[in-house]
Amino acid sequence: MINSLPGQSRVIIENIQPQVDKGRYPVKRTVGETVQVTADIFSDGHDHVRAEVLYRKKTEKNWSLAEMHHLGNDSWAGSFLVTDKVPYVFTVRAWVDHFETWYDGILKKIEAQLQVQLELAEGSVLLLQLTEGKKKDIQKLSAQLKDETRYAENIELVSGEMFAELVKQNPLRRYEVVYPAELLVVVEHAKARFSTWYELFPRSASLAGKHGTFADVIKLLPRIEAMGFDVLYLPPIHPIGKVNRKGKNNNVRSVAGEPGSPWAIGSDEGGHKAIHPQLGTLEQYKELIVKARKRGIDVAMDLAFQCAPDHPYVTEHPDWFKIRPDGSIQFAENPPKKYQDIYPFNFECDDWQNLWNELLSVVLYWIDQGVKIFRVDNPHTKPFRFWQWLIAEVNKRHEDIIFLSEAFTRPKVMAALAKLGFTQSYTYFTWRVTRNELVEYMNELVHGPSRNYFRPNFWPNTPDILPYHLQHQGETIFVIRFVLAATLSSNYGIYGPPFEFCENNPIPGKEEYFNSEKFEIKQYDWKKTTRMTDIISIVNKARKNHQALQSTWNIYFCTCNNDNLLAYLKTTDDLTDCVLVVVNFDQHGRQSGYVQLPKEILRLTDRINVKLHDLVTDEHYTWTQEWNYVELDPNKLPFHLFHLTIHESFA
Amino acid sequence: MINSLPGQSRVIIENIQPQVDKGRYPVKRTVGETVQVTADIFSDGHDHVRAEVLYRKKTEKNWSLAEMHHLGNDSWAGSFLVTDKVPYVFTVRAWVDHFETWYDGILKKIEAQLQVQLELAEGSVLLLQLTEGKKKDIQKLSAQLKDETRYAENIELVSGEMFAELVKQNPLRRYEVVYPAELLVVVEHAKARFSTWYELFPRSASLAGKHGTFADVIKLLPRIEAMGFDVLYLPPIHPIGKVNRKGKNNNVRSVAGEPGSPWAIGSDEGGHKAIHPQLGTLEQYKELIVKARKRGIDVAMDLAFQCAPDHPYVTEHPDWFKIRPDGSIQFAENPPKKYQDIYPFNFECDDWQNLWNELLSVVLYWIDQGVKIFRVDNPHTKPFRFWQWLIAEVNKRHEDIIFLSEAFTRPKVMAALAKLGFTQSYTYFTWRVTRNELVEYMNELVHGPSRNYFRPNFWPNTPDILPYHLQHQGETIFVIRFVLAATLSSNYGIYGPPFEFCENNPIPGKEEYFNSEKFEIKQYDWKKTTRMTDIISIVNKARKNHQALQSTWNIYFCTCNNDNLLAYLKTTDDLTDCVLVVVNFDQHGRQSGYVQLPKEILRLTDRINVKLHDLVTDEHYTWTQEWNYVELDPNKLPFHLFHLTIHESFA
Repeated sequence: MINSLPGQSRVIIENIQPQVDKGRYPVKRTVGETVQVTADIFSDGHDHVRAEVLYRKKTEKNWSLAEMHHLGNDSWAGSFLVTDKVPYVFTVRAWVDHFETWYDGILKKIEAQLQVQLELAEGSVLLLQLTEGKKKDIQKLSAQLKDETRYAENIELVSGEMFAELVKQNPLRRYEVVYPAELLVVVEHAKARFSTWYELFPRSASLAGKHGTFADVIKLLPRIEAMGFDVLYLPPIHPIGKVNRKGKNNNVRSVAGEPGSPWAIGSDEGGHKAIHPQLGTLEQYKELIVKARKRGIDVAMDLAFQCAPDHPYVTEHPDWFKIRPDGSIQFAENPPKKYQDIYPFNFECDDWQNLWNELLSVVLYWIDQGVKIFRVDNPHTKPFRFWQWLIAEVNKRHEDIIFLSEAFTRPKVMAALAKLGFTQSYTYFTWRVTRNELVEYMNELVHGPSRNYFRPNFWPNTPDILPYHLQHQGETIFVIRFVLAATLSSNYGIYGPPFEFCENNPIPGKEEYFNSEKFEIKQYDWKKTTRMTDIISIVNKARKNHQALQSTWNIYFCTCNNDNLLAYLKTTDDLTDCVLVVVNFDQHGRQSGYVQLPKEILRLTDRINVKLHDLVTDEHYTWTQEWNYVELDPNKLPFHLFHLTIHESFA
Repeated sequence: MINSLPGQSRVIIENIQPQVDKGRYPVKRTVGETVQVTADIFSDGHDHVRAEVLYRKKTEKNWSLAEMHHLGNDSWAGSFLVTDKVPYVFTVRAWVDHFETWYDGILKKIEAQLQVQLELAEGSVLLLQLTEGKKKDIQKLSAQLKDETRYAENIELVSGEMFAELVKQNPLRRYEVVYPAELLVVVEHAKARFSTWYELFPRSASLAGKHGTFADVIKLLPRIEAMGFDVLYLPPIHPIGKVNRKGKNNNVRSVAGEPGSPWAIGSDEGGHKAIHPQLGTLEQYKELIVKARKRGIDVAMDLAFQCAPDHPYVTEHPDWFKIRPDGSIQFAENPPKKYQDIYPFNFECDDWQNLWNELLSVVLYWIDQGVKIFRVDNPHTKPFRFWQWLIAEVNKRHEDIIFLSEAFTRPKVMAALAKLGFTQSYTYFTWRVTRNELVEYMNELVHGPSRNYFRPNFWPNTPDILPYHLQHQGETIFVIRFVLAATLSSNYGIYGPPFEFCENNPIPGKEEYFNSEKFEIKQYDWKKTTRMTDIISIVNKARKNHQALQSTWNIYFCTCNNDNLLAYLKTTDDLTDCVLVVVNFDQHGRQSGYVQLPKEILRLTDRINVKLHDLVTDEHYTWTQEWNYVELDPNKLPFHLFHLTIHESFA
């Protein structure tokens, strides 16, 4: 590729970022985000190089230009904003700029008091090349520079600010090199970046101690709205298998009347396109969707592509499963463990194309009923190429569909799913507990290569996971984990009632809930509010009101002299919104220390005047120093959530 | 690309190494080296994945296979040897292996004492798929496995070693994925990897105090051979410009009789294809080449593509230079500094194709006279695409040509030249002085991405550089720098006489020689031998005798409890040759400490029995511990160069 250019092209462009796996997958952004482009750019010799980002909406013909700046060590940077929900492409152009080279040289010679008649004459020639003789003003300047009678005047002219601006504004592109690939940026809607999830089992939604229904869930909407959530995620709502149904606490045998696991999908009552009769009708589900949306809440559907033994697919399409030598169908297993209530699809079956199409039709069916968000169960146990195809097919037909990948597995597998199209992903946040673990993990997410394709969604708990650090603990650790999830990541969620009511009782030795709601119906005191529910409401309100909390990529960890405290700043690019969070990791003891304001990031002078407003306690502070005292008593509140107002320094 | 495969293909292959800039440039190796291939490979679910490297000589049709092993975290490795001086290509193939998956599962079930009749029947089916019914033995096994009357026997069979070997030897490739790019490995001759350079100015070669000649250089060959060098590099041997000729110590004016700088090439006596008359004739130069080669020494030519003002090109092709508005030709400058004895070529000229062809003809001309090695002066001041083209054109016509890039410049520029085709490169070794600096630099060269294209050539000095740490110092620091260059890097060189005679007198405040040989003729006592010349001879002999010293990529830094000591091990892959170097960085004081033998690398048991032979002092030691005492008195010798013999541990 280097050789397909004319021999006079002297610039090398390498290592363009962002790109994902050499451009094999697109870079992801959401509307209103910036694409910061960097590249290694250099030429032979000492001539000056100039460079610019070329970018456009993919369907447009003409490039827009964004100037690049040299960061040092031959690394260059420029950026552009993606304003529309369409694909963009970008690349980089660079060239040896003889006008700027000449300008730099003559300035040095003037400073060294050398004679520069010849250089002025050269400048005169370059000015004409610049305009190709078009702009009258520049032609006039060109004539003046070669007029030796105006030597002193010309030296002053070239040394002046006007001329500096002229050089800056007029790149002399010659033998330019354009990087020979266009890199794709997929731009999604804002909710892909900023969403607030609440999970509940609809069968536990009843206020009357019965099997909950969609109608019961509708009654809970005011509570969910008041707490500030905008996604309501329900585990599978389909008929539950009756054959080999699991009992309480994952017992391999259920007794009569036990409801079974919603993830064992399908029975004589229907499969993935049917609704569990005890939850209600399709019409009632659609009513829930409509009523939730009026409150700004999207109802997310669980997509669990697996079957109970009595799922209609098993008789209609036995060839979609693995048939054993004795004619039986292979159930799920992880030898020597057996999961006899679940039949996985055999994605290697000969009829795989019909299987793929049927599963796509499931997704399209629910989109037609009003679903916009899918939480995908264990996507890493189905083929990557299947998901890539399915998500692309859906995106061809519909806008603004979100797929959340529930893959708690090995890093490269999680990354692969995000690359191939999942909008958001569950993360290791659930097990990142200490201050250092969290800082390291955030730095990996925000500054590592996954930043361009992996959108984290932080969950402190799920129906499958009651992590060790929450077990047998009081409310404070729940508050800490909540505020970390909600302010570190712009996408987060909780498995609602057990979290807000601080359920802390595990199966001994495991990270699982005792008497898990996965296998039984729960009754919750849905009318109760607590310190925890108040905090949830206030923090979610702050997230809605403060743009700084609506991105995961804008975090800066502040230096603090107490390792029990973690302080981090989130700001919009233009600093119009600044939030500072300070968390006390010691759930039992008061901790105090000094937090350093990052002067460069906040563009502070030595005369600091920052007003802080704690959005939870409503307290106000003024900081006039670089290092500032904070103190957090976990019995009152284990964190500060400050909105910062930076005042003009009083000089 | 992910979607061009059948839907049943479940494996993902990513991040194949080695590759240079996404395969844009080839990976470099020399004959006999190993290509260690790694990749991220994984599938959905829990099925077992198997993978292999596919490799072949580029002109061959059929792939050879090298099994890959899982290193953990979805990273896999395999390797192959490049035995021939031809281009190779490689890629990676992987698949879900249902036979191995089945085998792993049944072993676990047998261990858990579950019934496995059905699993044995499945195994029977898989065995038939394995052979497609071809091998009789396997067909027989298949029949046995499904024979329920032989259940106990079958369990023993499957649990046995024979069956394990059967599984290992019989991958069941189905829906395999081949990484969709073939990566190129260029394989060069051994001298590209292992060479020992000596630089001298032929005009200073006279033993009689006159202007030296090629005949004088021929007389020095026995000395150079005795010191163990196999490349003799002479600065430019062409006519030296008479116009604006530089005088002693880079004086802008020379006085009559001063010889000028050999890098100011060309005069009325000829240009780049001519020989400076005072050095001799073309025939005498060719005689030098032939006589040197008989002693195993290649004569390297300096390729300095620039002209003195009186070079014939200036009148024949004024359009190859930059012509200023007053009609004069632009000399070299770095404003406000001027270099009026040098005219650079204007590689952006309209006639660039003829310029390129002429410069190529210069290289081809000297190859026709017998030159195989070119040390290229300042390649980073000529266009990258020019060099890429020139080196490729030369390699099309000739084998085993070496181009050494003399680019002491920014890292990415040095890297770009190596990528595009330079065989070897000057490095920052010249300025890496402390123990930590050297360890860090070696780790970057050996373990960084440049390992696949950048072959370092270590020089402790050059005619342009007398580094600060050698200035006004005694012989010991010269010995230290020599042994570091000669044992850290398999390619190294010295600017001979000033180094072996420990010339240490700089222009004050600069890293340049006072009374530099670049501008005057020197007289050396070519008959003198010193401790330094003895050490050079012995170390170079060790380099020739010990294969471990003939690679730069096999270094391991040993732990040592004294920071003044640096200990490093070099071994062949099969451990048939092991060398341990210990250097005392304190040129004035005796230092002692304990060096740790790396047991894993040397495959030592707890009963250590290692014989050490110091190849310089001829002393012998036996080490029987992991940690071993060393002591180095710089007044005797500031380093050990041990050959290690590892004896079977006396159990």
